Amino acid sequence: MAENRYKVVFLPHDRVVEVAEGDTLIKAAMDAGVHINASCGGEGVCGKCRVIIETGEVEDGVNERLSAEDIEKGVRLACRARVKDDVVVRVPVESSISDKSALDIQRVPRRTAKIMQIDLEQLKEQGLFIPPVEKKFLELPPPDAGDNVPDVTRMVNVLRLKHDEHRLEFLLPVIRKIPDVIREQDFKVTVTMVRPVREDGKTQIVNVQAGDTTAMNYAIAVDIGTTTVYGELVDLVTGEVLARDGDFNAQISYGEDVITRIVQAEKPGGLKKLHDLVVGTINRIIGNLVKRSGVDTDDISTITLAGNTTMTQLFLEINPRYIRRSPYVPASTFYPPIRAADIDIDLDEHVIALVYPQISSYVGGDIVAGVMGSGMYRSDELTLFIDIGTNAEIVIGNKDWMVCAACSAGPAFEGGGITFGMRAAKGAIEDFSIDPVTFEPMIITHGNSRPVGICGSGLIIMVAMLFEAGVIDSNGKFNRELDTPRIRETDGVYEYVVVWKENTAIDRDIVLTEIDIDNLIRAKGAIYSGCMTLLDEVGLGIDQLDRIILSGGFGSYIDLEKAMIIGLLPEIDPEKVSFIGNGSLMGARMSALTNRIRRDVGQVVQKMTNFELSETSSYMDHYMAALFIPHTDLNLFPSVRDRMKARRKAAV
Amino acid sequence: MAENRYKVVFLPHDRVVEVAEGDTLIKAAMDAGVHINASCGGEGVCGKCRVIIETGEVEDGVNERLSAEDIEKGVRLACRARVKDDVVVRVPVESSISDKSALDIQRVPRRTAKIMQIDLEQLKEQGLFIPPVEKKFLELPPPDAGDNVPDVTRMVNVLRLKHDEHRLEFLLPVIRKIPDVIREQDFKVTVTMVRPVREDGKTQIVNVQAGDTTAMNYAIAVDIGTTTVYGELVDLVTGEVLARDGDFNAQISYGEDVITRIVQAEKPGGLKKLHDLVVGTINRIIGNLVKRSGVDTDDISTITLAGNTTMTQLFLEINPRYIRRSPYVPASTFYPPIRAADIDIDLDEHVIALVYPQISSYVGGDIVAGVMGSGMYRSDELTLFIDIGTNAEIVIGNKDWMVCAACSAGPAFEGGGITFGMRAAKGAIEDFSIDPVTFEPMIITHGNSRPVGICGSGLIIMVAMLFEAGVIDSNGKFNRELDTPRIRETDGVYEYVVVWKENTAIDRDIVLTEIDIDNLIRAKGAIYSGCMTLLDEVGLGIDQLDRIILSGGFGSYIDLEKAMIIGLLPEIDPEKVSFIGNGSLMGARMSALTNRIRRDVGQVVQKMTNFELSETSSYMDHYMAALFIPHTDLNLFPSVRDRMKARRKAAV
Repeated sequence: MAENRYKVVFLPHDRVVEVAEGDTLIKAAMDAGVHINASCGGEGVCGKCRVIIETGEVEDGVNERLSAEDIEKGVRLACRARVKDDVVVRVPVESSISDKSALDIQRVPRRTAKIMQIDLEQLKEQGLFIPPVEKKFLELPPPDAGDNVPDVTRMVNVLRLKHDEHRLEFLLPVIRKIPDVIREQDFKVTVTMVRPVREDGKTQIVNVQAGDTTAMNYAIAVDIGTTTVYGELVDLVTGEVLARDGDFNAQISYGEDVITRIVQAEKPGGLKKLHDLVVGTINRIIGNLVKRSGVDTDDISTITLAGNTTMTQLFLEINPRYIRRSPYVPASTFYPPIRAADIDIDLDEHVIALVYPQISSYVGGDIVAGVMGSGMYRSDELTLFIDIGTNAEIVIGNKDWMVCAACSAGPAFEGGGITFGMRAAKGAIEDFSIDPVTFEPMIITHGNSRPVGICGSGLIIMVAMLFEAGVIDSNGKFNRELDTPRIRETDGVYEYVVVWKENTAIDRDIVLTEIDIDNLIRAKGAIYSGCMTLLDEVGLGIDQLDRIILSGGFGSYIDLEKAMIIGLLPEIDPEKVSFIGNGSLMGARMSALTNRIRRDVGQVVQKMTNFELSETSSYMDHYMAALFIPHTDLNLFPSVRDRMKARRKAAV
Repeated sequence: MAENRYKVVFLPHDRVVEVAEGDTLIKAAMDAGVHINASCGGEGVCGKCRVIIETGEVEDGVNERLSAEDIEKGVRLACRARVKDDVVVRVPVESSISDKSALDIQRVPRRTAKIMQIDLEQLKEQGLFIPPVEKKFLELPPPDAGDNVPDVTRMVNVLRLKHDEHRLEFLLPVIRKIPDVIREQDFKVTVTMVRPVREDGKTQIVNVQAGDTTAMNYAIAVDIGTTTVYGELVDLVTGEVLARDGDFNAQISYGEDVITRIVQAEKPGGLKKLHDLVVGTINRIIGNLVKRSGVDTDDISTITLAGNTTMTQLFLEINPRYIRRSPYVPASTFYPPIRAADIDIDLDEHVIALVYPQISSYVGGDIVAGVMGSGMYRSDELTLFIDIGTNAEIVIGNKDWMVCAACSAGPAFEGGGITFGMRAAKGAIEDFSIDPVTFEPMIITHGNSRPVGICGSGLIIMVAMLFEAGVIDSNGKFNRELDTPRIRETDGVYEYVVVWKENTAIDRDIVLTEIDIDNLIRAKGAIYSGCMTLLDEVGLGIDQLDRIILSGGFGSYIDLEKAMIIGLLPEIDPEKVSFIGNGSLMGARMSALTNRIRRDVGQVVQKMTNFELSETSSYMDHYMAALFIPHTDLNLFPSVRDRMKARRKAAV
């Protein structure tokens, strides 16, 4: 069922915004670009966000901060009041400290990328919905004295003559099953066939089942993340996902990042241990998927997996030591199909594991999976594919060519190196607006609870809004001349107080320092200059990009306009940005649905040129140029440039 | 060094024969067709085989049976005296009871088939000496900042550009080794490659070793026999066999024949048990081969195996129950290459096991191996390939077509069903001659020791000689009119006393009964009629055979002329008969030496037509016609026919 949406009119600004049922008025105001002082994250403790409901009804918004008289008059706390009707809301003077607010900041609703998913219908239309593992039902003529060819020959004959299947190879485990299984239901059997990568390759017969089981054919798709492992159980007949599960990668107790894991793997027994841990996690997830979906494991025909280079090597028990040592060499790009049981996966003997190939030590199978799953590799459009995390991986190209690189952005987007940085958990400030006159903030926290810190996406919004309001300059320095107690110098470092101590959950002022801003600028500069370097190397400009695909958990939270204001993403029509979520998992599922992926991925990997940015001479120049908000070259950000001009003009 | 050969002249017959140094005079006499009464098997106990050395010297031949005067005169016991010089020997009247002996029986030396072996030089000349597993030495450019492609890609690039190797597949175990191994000797490595069966298939890289190890590349070839398992360690660089070993198949404690093994395999846990037993035997043999040859197991690249259908299925742990049940269906003809470790073979992880395909339940991989190893499948000549045992397998054809069948000959050739039948062990009568006047026998036993019984090859000679001497007729019945105490009736059955009790090691008369002869006739009839049926089915006659290849242990002992006299083998120039010994082992070694075998065997198996004799209507007629000595149709045996005519004429 589609969610109900309602209109909210803010007076005296006369701003109209449409929001979902259940959204708070503070969120509606944030989206409408209407400033309301709101400092406590939405818990109703500060009582400053009073608004008056003129027409329509809201839910809640009443607490002990309001008198009976207030309530009678229609006063509500905007941070608690939830929309359930079209409403007209008046923002009183004391809530909207400056009535210029709404006029100055052309706040547009926080705008995240549109979601791109696997389109099964399209896949079917394009004839691509041909899984690498298929089942076929065979009716064999029973043997008699005049026809006693071997059982396998009997099957081969029917496959050849009645099903036009040639170049077949029967694996030993299935040969072992054949004599008894084919006699179970009067020589009526279903075979499971693994298609070759190349059309002239051999089709492997990996399983045989009595009777007709063609309606039951399943795959497991797995993303092996450094932090988290996700799995899906995919119905290969319908293409649908029947169950999903995720869990922390049990390797996490051996370090949070890939480098620490590699160090651990180099210790005696370490590689085996880390292999066992991640396989344990995968097996737990498989167990849950099987339980939830209720499928018979004998009908699970394949498992497809994608992970970054280190995760893939640890999973396959391949020493990753040279990944972290100059010149950073991974063991392999491609891995052959592997019997799942050979790598300790708890699936039946016949299950073949297909593992995504790698490009380089730091552009791994997760990125390749995203490129394949998103269909970028089949598109005419010049696409920037980007997965933002501690390491950001960038791929630029289209169906004809691709270049890629990994940039070390540092942990700023995950809250690392930021004084009050945190992950997007309860109490994380995830939205922010500022009154351009009073410089008072308006915040929304994750879970509408008392502020604890600032998450990556909140940080981007905060820096963008502070920049647009002239509170910080292009260098990320605070305007020392502004008249507000929120900007202050502590131990020689300028900072902005986002939330006063009494409104936080941590009994300390939550601040944003110039060091924090500098870290953010370095992080976004690394990514942007990575894109610039890649484009530069192929002789293109950033204005030639047709679209951006964001992958990874962080991408879903990014406010696109704000990311473009700070110069994290190239300025582009936000309509041309899409988000694929877990691209690695998407690619794993995609390769379970269409065997074409396995064929195409070989070409993609071969055609993709990897750049080691540290070895690319132009990178440092691009990086230095990107250490500004948004960039030293404002022509790359025309909208920001135009608004800055307008602001300077207004200030004159 | 070639063995020394000497001339022996027998007087008064004036017969000359050339024998090897160390041969006894009794053997020389047997070969010369000179009859000497010799009843004790050559132990010197009966003292009847006295001869006089006229010129030259012999070794031994003196015991307490001879007086000092005898010795002084040059008298020696022919069964003990060994040739070490050209000698002239006089046979006294008391030793040669009838001086007509030598004139009547045109005894020719026991003539076994010439030995056919793998001709390495020819194989090299024909460009066939290309093992399925090759090693190549690679010098990789070390990675640097400007060239940090993955290790496997680095190897692929060198293999492609410098060695023209394409379509490569790296298996996971070798990928695991690569990162460390290539760095061990400065990026100089040797790869082990398994060639594809089809030229357009993939070459698998299965091992990588530091430095140049191309000079060390070995294979193990194994014949999995029902009774005995034989192994060879083959040098794939020179083609030579470096070590040989054999042992009883440990399954033998679960029954001597394949049917009993199948019955055992059908019991709970039986299949696993039998698999473990034969693998245990193979592993012991491998251990011995490695120890004897002193090779490094890391340099053993492949193991090739051949066995009959039941042995192959038990080895691969495939339920053989349908082999022994009508309509006698084996699981498969072909088996894919299998990792040796997957079937519990004690060889390194990279070793691939290649298993010979089967034709039918009773024409197995051992026969296919013989056909391939002997080169029969590449020959223009119409060849009869035959492996005689309890089951005799017959293949007829040439490079264009082949037909095959298995016939149940029964155990007569292995001594089964024969009153005094035994295997070719110590004391087995293995050669026999008869005085056509006195009907006294002359025997030679295995090991020149006191007679214990009659082995299969001895039985054939005995029946042939008795037939030629007119002691038995075409029906295998004794001539009741002959005046000799050696033919007698016991409990209603006629028999011939081969050795009187006092000269045996068993304190009983060793006899040959009409029932024994009948069993032999049935056995040889089954085989001969099998050949006839196959030829009949393809519209050819037995006179069109160009040659015969004998395979199997029994074949080496067969006296070709005698086998043709009794009608076991078609009458053909003995020069055209060759013996390949253990054809199964020969084929296993051959497929280790030349990958062409693997390619060709597919076509051979597909083109070979298997006949179930019991389902072939003409078989019973052929069988009935073959239950005579040599056959009801004497025109099939012209030499025998002519001698019979001459004999009848002489008798008139």
